Amino acid sequence: MIDTNALQKYSLFGGVLPEQIERIKPLFSYARYDAGDMPMREGDPNDKIFFIVGGRVSVSKQGITIAELGEGETFGEMELIDVMPSIATITALEPLEVVTISNRALYEISKVDIKTFSLLVMNLARDLSRRLRRMDELACRE
Amino acid sequence: MIDTNALQKYSLFGGVLPEQIERIKPLFSYARYDAGDMPMREGDPNDKIFFIVGGRVSVSKQGITIAELGEGETFGEMELIDVMPSIATITALEPLEVVTISNRALYEISKVDIKTFSLLVMNLARDLSRRLRRMDELACRE
Repeated sequence: MIDTNALQKYSLFGGVLPEQIERIKPLFSYARYDAGDMPMREGDPNDKIFFIVGGRVSVSKQGITIAELGEGETFGEMELIDVMPSIATITALEPLEVVTISNRALYEISKVDIKTFSLLVMNLARDLSRRLRRMDELACRE
Repeated sequence: MIDTNALQKYSLFGGVLPEQIERIKPLFSYARYDAGDMPMREGDPNDKIFFIVGGRVSVSKQGITIAELGEGETFGEMELIDVMPSIATITALEPLEVVTISNRALYEISKVDIKTFSLLVMNLARDLSRRLRRMDELACRE
């Protein structure tokens, strides 16, 4: 159900070998949502990262759509890392398929395969850093 | 010269035991700057995180001061992680003492002590996530 090759294209798995993904894959989950479902709601708890493997979602804050995401993209990484309330609402725009890694699963990965764990967290930190640079550029343009 | 107990108060060392810090401390560097020196310049390469252990600095972008930092605070974490040009200029406001960890040192830490490495990177990711939330709040307040 969860395709190792498909996961390799996500930035979170940059530098992670297929055999490393295979080893930790049993800790991942797979879920489907209908159009209109909200896998994440602004202000609500969320403890996992979502990899969109099929379908599209909208990202909204205070009712205003600020972005759309599709296959190959992720959401929930900040909440996975800092276990704070969700920063935005995610709404499925069409039938949605996701692979998720929970905070608990990430902890298990750290116990069974610390090398892969540290690679994942490094990739996550890089993504967050890239996002900070983008926000910073936007803020300075105003 | 580099005090383990002093380092423990930095968020990057959250959850890291004194004996873990002792083990990797030989990979850290110590530096002094005079008032007016610029340990980091916007747009220039920087490959290390700086821990301010004495003195104060200003953070400026395009010549405008946007913040001041002092003892217990850090700068350079984004550049350490993503090896992109420096996002701001740091100017010493008075004699400045810093402890630094370079990208190369971080790589060495990953080889000699992967557990401590993964803890450091996790703490770094949490810091970046917190910063993103702050920027997000500021952006929405406008």
